[in-house]
Formats: sequence, C-alpha cells, structure tokens
Amino acid sequence: MSVKVAVAGASGNAGGELLRLIEGHPELVLGPITAGTQVGSSVSEVHPGLAELGDRVFEPTDTAVLEAADVVFLALPKGHSSRLAAELTPSVRVVDLGPDFRLTDPLAWEHYYGGPHPGSWTYGLPEIPGARERIAGARRVATPGCYATAVILALGPLLAAGLIGPDDLVVTAVSGTSSGGRAAKASLSPSDVLGALRSYTVGATYRNPAEMEQELATFAKAPVTVSFTPFSVPMPRGIVVSCSARLRDGTGSDELRAALAEAYLDERFVRLLPASRWPATAAVTGTNSALLQAGADTRTGRGVVLSAIDNLGKGAAGQAVQNANLMLGLPEDAGLTTRGAS
Amino acid sequence: MSVKVAVAGASGNAGGELLRLIEGHPELVLGPITAGTQVGSSVSEVHPGLAELGDRVFEPTDTAVLEAADVVFLALPKGHSSRLAAELTPSVRVVDLGPDFRLTDPLAWEHYYGGPHPGSWTYGLPEIPGARERIAGARRVATPGCYATAVILALGPLLAAGLIGPDDLVVTAVSGTSSGGRAAKASLSPSDVLGALRSYTVGATYRNPAEMEQELATFAKAPVTVSFTPFSVPMPRGIVVSCSARLRDGTGSDELRAALAEAYLDERFVRLLPASRWPATAAVTGTNSALLQAGADTRTGRGVVLSAIDNLGKGAAGQAVQNANLMLGLPEDAGLTTRGAS
Amino acid sequence: MSVKVAVAGASGNAGGELLRLIEGHPELVLGPITAGTQVGSSVSEVHPGLAELGDRVFEPTDTAVLEAADVVFLALPKGHSSRLAAELTPSVRVVDLGPDFRLTDPLAWEHYYGGPHPGSWTYGLPEIPGARERIAGARRVATPGCYATAVILALGPLLAAGLIGPDDLVVTAVSGTSSGGRAAKASLSPSDVLGALRSYTVGATYRNPAEMEQELATFAKAPVTVSFTPFSVPMPRGIVVSCSARLRDGTGSDELRAALAEAYLDERFVRLLPASRWPATAAVTGTNSALLQAGADTRTGRGVVLSAIDNLGKGAAGQAVQNANLMLGLPEDAGLTTRGAS
Amino acid sequence: MSVKVAVAGASGNAGGELLRLIEGHPELVLGPITAGTQVGSSVSEVHPGLAELGDRVFEPTDTAVLEAADVVFLALPKGHSSRLAAELTPSVRVVDLGPDFRLTDPLAWEHYYGGPHPGSWTYGLPEIPGARERIAGARRVATPGCYATAVILALGPLLAAGLIGPDDLVVTAVSGTSSGGRAAKASLSPSDVLGALRSYTVGATYRNPAEMEQELATFAKAPVTVSFTPFSVPMPRGIVVSCSARLRDGTGSDELRAALAEAYLDERFVRLLPASRWPATAAVTGTNSALLQAGADTRTGRGVVLSAIDNLGKGAAGQAVQNANLMLGLPEDAGLTTRGAS
Repeated sequence: MSVKVAVAGASGNAGGELLRLIEGHPELVLGPITAGTQVGSSVSEVHPGLAELGDRVFEPTDTAVLEAADVVFLALPKGHSSRLAAELTPSVRVVDLGPDFRLTDPLAWEHYYGGPHPGSWTYGLPEIPGARERIAGARRVATPGCYATAVILALGPLLAAGLIGPDDLVVTAVSGTSSGGRAAKASLSPSDVLGALRSYTVGATYRNPAEMEQELATFAKAPVTVSFTPFSVPMPRGIVVSCSARLRDGTGSDELRAALAEAYLDERFVRLLPASRWPATAAVTGTNSALLQAGADTRTGRGVVLSAIDNLGKGAAGQAVQNANLMLGLPEDAGLTTRGAS
Repeated sequence: MSVKVAVAGASGNAGGELLRLIEGHPELVLGPITAGTQVGSSVSEVHPGLAELGDRVFEPTDTAVLEAADVVFLALPKGHSSRLAAELTPSVRVVDLGPDFRLTDPLAWEHYYGGPHPGSWTYGLPEIPGARERIAGARRVATPGCYATAVILALGPLLAAGLIGPDDLVVTAVSGTSSGGRAAKASLSPSDVLGALRSYTVGATYRNPAEMEQELATFAKAPVTVSFTPFSVPMPRGIVVSCSARLRDGTGSDELRAALAEAYLDERFVRLLPASRWPATAAVTGTNSALLQAGADTRTGRGVVLSAIDNLGKGAAGQAVQNANLMLGLPEDAGLTTRGAS
Repeated sequence: MSVKVAVAGASGNAGGELLRLIEGHPELVLGPITAGTQVGSSVSEVHPGLAELGDRVFEPTDTAVLEAADVVFLALPKGHSSRLAAELTPSVRVVDLGPDFRLTDPLAWEHYYGGPHPGSWTYGLPEIPGARERIAGARRVATPGCYATAVILALGPLLAAGLIGPDDLVVTAVSGTSSGGRAAKASLSPSDVLGALRSYTVGATYRNPAEMEQELATFAKAPVTVSFTPFSVPMPRGIVVSCSARLRDGTGSDELRAALAEAYLDERFVRLLPASRWPATAAVTGTNSALLQAGADTRTGRGVVLSAIDNLGKGAAGQAVQNANLMLGLPEDAGLTTRGAS
Repeated sequence: MSVKVAVAGASGNAGGELLRLIEGHPELVLGPITAGTQVGSSVSEVHPGLAELGDRVFEPTDTAVLEAADVVFLALPKGHSSRLAAELTPSVRVVDLGPDFRLTDPLAWEHYYGGPHPGSWTYGLPEIPGARERIAGARRVATPGCYATAVILALGPLLAAGLIGPDDLVVTAVSGTSSGGRAAKASLSPSDVLGALRSYTVGATYRNPAEMEQELATFAKAPVTVSFTPFSVPMPRGIVVSCSARLRDGTGSDELRAALAEAYLDERFVRLLPASRWPATAAVTGTNSALLQAGADTRTGRGVVLSAIDNLGKGAAGQAVQNANLMLGLPEDAGLTTRGAS
C-alpha cells in the first residue's frame, strides 16, 4: 500500500515536522507541499534538516493542487483551514492541525475566537476512550492543540475515575518557543528569547482552556473549569504541564497512579513513569510519546499530574500522522517513534 | 564609613554573587572569604568574572577567621550555618542565606528537615510590613529562600487585603539551574540540563511551602496552605512563579493590581508592571528587583500573580546585602541595582 | 559635573545597553532618546529591565531633538549615522556605534559597503597606543565593531612586538545572537536559533576584516590580512574569538603571554588570564572587560590568542561610554564595571 | 537475519545513543548492556527517553557477559577498551568508540596518551576511499573521534585533489557539551555551562590533531599539520568545525565545491549544501549525516570548509552502527536516518 499525502502550510514548524515524519513513513508518499509567503522556496532553504527533500519546492496553497492527494494535512493558522476545507472534495481525507474545527460549541467559538463557528470535526486524540473508532471512520479529523493534548491525557482518567474534582483545575504549562509559531516577531527577537524565561498571559482571555474543558467534561460527565497559565522558556521544543486538582476524600498517590496506569496499559504512546521519576522534555523530543507522573499532596488536598510531550510531536505532527494511520487502516504507530533523540 | 565583611561558602553560586556585590559596594570592604572543598583555590579559578579579586584565596571555614569581620555572610548548606553560628561571638552581625534559621515552629522544622530545631532568626524580607525595623535592630538575620521571596511578595498584600482565600494556594515555580546549587551531580550533567525542561517533585515532601506558609499566615491572619510544584529549565539564573488563589467575591484584576501597587508604592526593589506586561527573567538578571503582574480570571474564580526575581539576587545575595545595609544603618540600596543586565 | 546625553537608536540591543549604562553613570544624565519604528513606545515596553526609565518615550530621530544634548550617541544601522551626523552642529560631541566612520580608506569603504565614503572619525579603541589622547581631543569618535575590538586587542601587541607574522591571520569568531541586531527576521526565528549552532558565511564578502586589517596594520607597520569566519550560537550575549597567526622563529607561549601582559599592564578593562585558564563569556557579561589568553603551538608553528568580550559591552555600548568619558575628561571607568553578572 | 549485540559503557552519552539506535534497528537485537558505576540501575533511570528498554538493567562490564553477543560495541574511556579487548574471543566482532585503537604510530600514541601503544584497528570512517571494503572484512573496527570525523570529511577530498596545501591547516571546532562526557565535574556545573561560551585549550597538548593528521596524510600523500582550537557552547549536541587551508594557485570556490560534490556524489550520509547555505547543528541532530559547505577567500589565499555533524551520531554511535552494518553485510544505512529531528 502506498498513500499519497499533501501538506498545506509545510513551511512552518509543524509543517516541517510533518514532512520529516512522512518522509520516514513506510506507507505514506509525499505529494504536493504548499506554503504562503515561502511559495517558490525549496524545502532545504526552510528546513535544512530535510536533505532528501531538498529539491522539492513549495507550491501555492490551492485546492486543485492539494486534491491530487489521498490525505491532506492542514498546518495553517486559525481561519485558513476552514476556508480551504470548504472547497475540498468531501471524499478526500483531511487532518487539520489548527484550531478551526476543534470546538463543538458555537458560543464557545464565538467567545474565544470571534466570527461564525466553522463547525467541528472528529476530535483526534486517539487515547480518549472511543475516539480511536470515531477517527478510523472519519473523513475529517481535528488534531488537538499541544497544551490540550498534554492536559487531557493527564487529567481525563482521574476525572473519569472520580478521584479528583472537576471544578477547580489549575494548569501551568511550560513550553519551548516553537509553540509560538515560526513567523518573525520583533517582540520575540532571538536575543530576548534566549535570555528570558517568561509568562505571557493570565486570566480569562486565553483560548486554550475552552478545548480542554470541552473534552475533559466528557470524562467527568460534568462541567469542568480550567485556570490556565502558560510560560515560555528558551528551548526549541517540548512542553511540560503541571495539572493541579482537588483530591476526592481518601485519594492518595497510589490511587492516582493506578488510575493512570490502567487507562494507558495498552497504549504505546502514553506512559506513566516509575514512582520518583519526573517527566522531562529530553525524553520525548522527536517522538509521539507522552510521559506522565502523578502525586497526591494530602496535606493541601491537591493532586498534581505532570505531563511531557514534544509540542511538534504528540502535540501536532506526530498525532496528526497517528490520526491519518487510523483513518487509513494502517498500523497506528507506522512512521512514529517513542525513542527520544536527546 | 567602611565595614569589613566575611563570606563563608564563597565558592558557591550565592557566595560568588555575594563577592560580586560586595566588591561593588560603596561601604563594605571584603575581609575573609572561606570555602569547603575549594580551600586554597583562588577566586578567579572558581568565579572567573571576578577579575579584581583574582588573587584572593579561599580560607577554611573557621570561626576565628570569620570573626575578624564586622558582618559575616553565611552561604552554606543546611545544617552548616547552625553549627557555625553557635560558635560566633554574639556581637558579630550575621546574615544567613541558608534554611537553618527561617522556620519558627520546631515541629515544622522536624517534619521537613529532621533533627532538633536550630532556632529562628529575624526573617529578612524587608518589604514585609514591620520587617525593616526588626532587621535594623537585629544581630542575626535569616535571608528567605528564593522561591519563598517570590511567592510572599506576590501573595502577601492580597491576603492582607482579603482579596484572595488563604486555604487553596497553588504555586508553580520555574527556575534556572543555579537554584540547584553548584555541587556536581551525575544526575544533572550539562547535557541533560541543556536539553531538558523538567519538573522535579510533587506533593508533600518538598520543603519550600513551610517557609511560605509561615510568612503568608501573618498577612492572612489565618492558616495558609500552599501546593507547590517546581520546574527546572535550561537557563543559568532567574525564577518566575505563578501563584494561583481563589478570589473573594467581587474581586477583579483592578482590585488585585491596586492592592499590589499600594503595597509597593514606596518600594524601590518591588514593582508592579503596567497592565498587559508579563514578568521575564531577563529584566531582573543581576538585580535585586522583583517584577509582579496580576490578573483575575472571574470565569474560574481564580486570580494569578506572576513574580520574577533573580534567584541569586533578590532570591539570595542581593537580599542578603539589603539586610546587611539595614542592620548597619546604610542606605538600603547601597551596592544594589534595579537595572537588568540582559 | 552633570552632562546631558542623547541616544539615537535607543530601541535596539546596543541602544538598550547604552540606556542601562547611562542610567547608572555618576556624571551623565539621560536626555532625549530616539527610535525608528518604535517611536511613541515607552522604554519599559522595549527594554523591560529598565524599570526606572519606564515612562520615557522614544522620540523620532531628529537633529533638533538630539542637539539638546552635550553628547550624542548614535546606535544606528549602516548609512543612518552619516546622514544624521551631517546635520549635527560641529560643537556637539558625537559617539557613533555603527560602521559609517570607521574606515579611513575610501576604496575599502566602496568595496565592502558600496556608495560614497562618508569619511572617517577618530577610531575609538582607547587601549590602542596613542588612541586615548586622540579620543580625548575629538568631537567625533567612531566606536569599533565588536569583532574588531576582540581581535585588535588580541593580536595588536603581538604584531607590534614582531612575535607573529602579519600576512596569514586566521580568525574564527563565535558569538551570541544579539550581534545580529534586534530586527525580526523569519530566517532567525527563535526556534531556529535555540536549536542551532551555525556558521553564516565564508570568504571574501564579509565586511569585518577591513576594519581589523586597517587597525592591525598600524601595529604591524605592514599590510595585514585576516581570514575571518563567524559562528552564531544560541546565547543572548558574548563573543569569543580565536586568532591564529604564524609564529616568528623562537616564539613560545611565554613570549606571547609576556607581550600581552606588558601591553595591558596598566589597563583596567583588558586582562590576560593566568596560564591554563580560558576566556568564557560568563565572566564578561554586563562588563566593559576583555579577557585574553595565548598559547604557542610550536609543532605547527602557529600561535593562538583567545579573546572574550560582551558584544554589547566592550564590543559596543560599554566602549562608547568609555570613549565619552575620555572626551569629557571624566574618569575613564565612570559608569563601567569589570565584574561579570553571570 | 537477527544479530545479537552487546554495549559496554551503555550508561554514557554515546552508549545511550547506541541503545536508541539499536532499539530502532531492523536487524540488530539488543543483548547484554554493561556499565561501571551505574551497574544495577535501570536504563530508564539513566536514559529516560528509552522507555521501552526501561526494565533492562546495566550489568558489570565483564568479558563473559559481553561474549554472549555477535557484535560488541565498546563506548568506554581511554584505556578501558584495550584492557577489555585483550580478553575477548577473536571471532567476536568489536566496534570501539574510544581512542585506544585509532592511532597507527606507536610514537604518536606515547606522545599524546602516554604508556604502551595498544595497537591499531581498522579505521572506521566508511566514506574514506577504500575504507568501506576494509571495514567489511574486519573483526575489529575503531570508530573515529567526533572532531576527526568532521575534519576528515571536510578536508580529505581537497587534499587529495591538490586544491589546498597540507602544511598549514587551521581548525576551530565548536561543540555542544555532550562531547565532554557524562561524568559529573564541579568545573562544569550546569550553571557555568549554561551561561558560557568558552574555549578550553590551545596549543600542542590537545590530542585530536594526531588522529586528523594521520588520516589526512593518506589523502595528501604528504605530512599534514593541523592547528586545532576547540570551543564549548551551551547546547546538548552537535559540532560545527571551520577548517581553513592555504589555497593552491588558481583555486576558487567553484573548484572547492566541485571536489567535495564529486567525492560524496554517491554517499548517503555526507552532503554538500547548496551555495550560500551554511551548516547548522539543528539539521543533523539525531542523524548520521554530515553537512558541508566550502568557500575560497582569494584575497587572503585561504579556503574554508565548514562541516556539521551530531557528535553522538556521525561523530560516535551513528558511525559505529554504520560500521557494524558493513561488518555484517547489512544495508549500510540500516537503522540510521538523515532526517534531523530539530
């Protein structure tokens, strides 16, 4: 079997990681690759690590170009995917890496993003119970955001098991700079980034909680609220999130760990670390893995789950390939690795 | 006026920063400097940035040597300060940078550190109401830990004003590696540190909350519980903490900001940033400053205060010099700066 | 004495460091500060470490504005200084940090920069023999480039002493990213920079050798050729250069070191390290220092001098302030430090 | 086919990369893994990225243990490989990653390393003309050092083509910290490394030139001298070397590039970049690739070749696996990649 795939937005950080994974995939063959401002540039100018794709040139992001493929990956900014998707033949399989089709609630969309709700696609986090089957049957899949992936994997099983309360989740995310996208900004000059650990927002305006709350509510069978604070650190890749929740009475570290171990017993890409070991980004760089650890602080009545992923791997391109594998009936781990390069 | 000072533990990270600050101080003159394993080494071998101290050699950490000074700074690991302090003449002024004399409650000490309680000294965080006078009158001062400094400055005024609840504080601290001390560890080889953002503990065993809770309780006039999670990032210096607390009814961002602005109106070293600006380590590196920002997330009922310091500056050596200035009746900011080098 | 100074280009990396140094200077008072695209922004938006200048706002870069000062610092891109300088009253003292007035040879200017030669000003590297007096008597001074500063300090005395040959100098420079300027470039996204050590040019097109060769020729009393290769590394500040030269017969490490030690015996800002110690950027960050080390490799007939500076300190703003101090008859080290913050 | 391999020194940086590559190799199966001080630890304690090896435990480095494998990789410090190799059955294939068996000249060994010459094995740099066949027929192969690999690939073809002179090569190497090994040293605390770009030696005592000169002499058919200066930068992995050589008359950039292009036309792992593109470590991290660029500076009569590798990939474990593939008659690129993860 050999499936032709296209990548729109292939010049960005997530797009480049898609190219890398597709080139090493045993069943996928790279078809058209498109870009915006980088149209006409060669791959090796933008992604020098991709030597064997060096002669490939970015084409304009155009429906006719993309439809020559069996699967289309969209690695585009907010709003661009929905415009493009409206023109793509329904029979083409599409995996979106952007936010356009993640939220099911039109009011939440309008509140956080503004404008008319573009609709919602199958939510592509395969380790959510039942999701694997939905993804396998879908023609359109919305790959989750990187923060949401890390948080849902960490807290979902504990909410489902009733070990933590749903109404006072406090999440702090620390991430490398590739989460911020590749477009040049004077506000993030290399010199600034290199010297600085920084937080970059607090409070109600940040969009990420909407996606987390939507999905965690299905685990909790109750409304969920997440208070979210992101940090940026001077590293190229990687995210670790700290997820704090109120413990239900009698819950200790053993119960938290047991619930996570059971939830991911048969999962290849999500792994609870041994006790006294803590997630670090080095172990997940270049992989599709998520590493988890949990502990109960009975003194304060709070439990903490730590979760590490590569924001470009399980947080974007890796998970997108995992979704495509499911949609195509391929082995779920085809072209993906759990062995960290650093 | 010219005051002779000694530094014990001068070969470590905080000790080196003390030497740097003392050398640039208009009134302090560097007397004996002592070390442990580095006895006999010259300053420039250990701290190559301190050229003009290059010929000075570390002496053994000995009471007789240290007492030749008017002020003794102790930058020593847990347990070492208390052994040494017991032998020092009561009339010598001593500023401790370690944990030995920070906790007032013997039970808390035994719980977190084990062994007999060494006693407690005047807590040296000058921006706590009333502390400045106590420090000025003391012969023995315990400089706070770096995490505690950042958290107390962030939350104290809000607890005092009744804007947040004391019983469910959730703190995530992200810090550079110099917080971990200078001793070589195979578990923290340079290659590991450089590639990795990591968390390193969760739950009840970590010692830092004891100090935060002790001091914050005096603001809240009620018991305080802090759930604390630390992260380590690949940077040499700097800490940013995210402090999340339940909002009292009706509290918004304006109220949080107003309380902080009022508390630090006359403070030179603690500053509330303009709205929409976020604390970053680059702005405090090499300084004795703390930068704050606050926001209310009324949707989740939680407020967040972000606080950035240099862990070796306001978090250690800078604050120790500030305390010494107060004890000696010198201008409080003598030898200290608020202008960040990065 | 209190001298009013203006800074044009105050929103850039070197401009920000100028503001930091001027604010801490005992005799200089900050007058007008101007910018290009950042006109109307406040200092604290662009340089968050400069809290006490937070309310100051960047004005347009305008002759009338700048002439209100006694000394004008120009931290501007190539070409901008010469346009502005033509309009400034001759009596105003001007210190340029850009390349416009460094080259004395019109042909060299045309070859490397193109267009008509803007002329040349007094070359502002005070540690060059005789330069201190020329600078003190000048109204216009051109501060050297960062690479040239590091290389001239390293090789000048050895050429003057005839210990190395002038015709086959091979220089490799490794620098942090602030050397590249603050303007945002898609080619240098934070993610690229953080993950990558890179070289960025080879061969004849690079401009820096012209300046080095011009000044080194006055030491050698003969033409000098420098083959120059720069590297960029993921750090905010700092430069180390490796300068390789053919040894004259009989020259060993002792002769190299003796010549450097003698040349800089009375210099506060340039220092030969003890034998077996190697220059590192941490020791010079935030300072106006240069640290040197030298060794002879008699097997290959080559000597190597290593030289470390802060590219924004001795390589730009620090040296500009040193020049202004000389021009104004102030102590040469006023407002400058040799104590590294890291 | 399925070949059982053993790794001695599996707890170090190169050893960990060997484990990662072997686990992903289609034909190799991981047999015994041994360590020194880490005996009894599990893989996941030391290399947290290697989740699926997590339960494997390091055994003592013992001949009987290792001989249970068909191929033994030795990732050991100087001197350890030769002691162990003397006891291993001659029929076992051995790939050494250390320096013990690289030098053919006993005098050179005694000069640089001291003590009796342990002998020399087949030099395992497959891209050297004729080396591939020698490696395929060998039972003992010495994998080159990381610096030597980068330099030989850069300069060998130019010396063979007579485009550069052999007697005045000047090499500056800039590398991440994993080149320095994993053992903890107080002289390289994380805080020091993170803040500092540093050089760490000059002159005649450094050992690396011996290996470069030995191999380059076979290209040049004449003695070669290399003047070598290494830099350490705050990054986990990667090396870029700048190799400067005197140009033969009439040699320009085109000739340099043509010679490299021809030499590596059929090589999968060594690639000349397009003109105006410069080697960077991000593109080779995690790979077995070397990226080259060359330019002639006719003004100074010198040519420069830049060469980037992953010091743990093509500079150590990747090349060791490439050698094992050749020794076993497997496809040379089995288990290796050219697609950079960063």
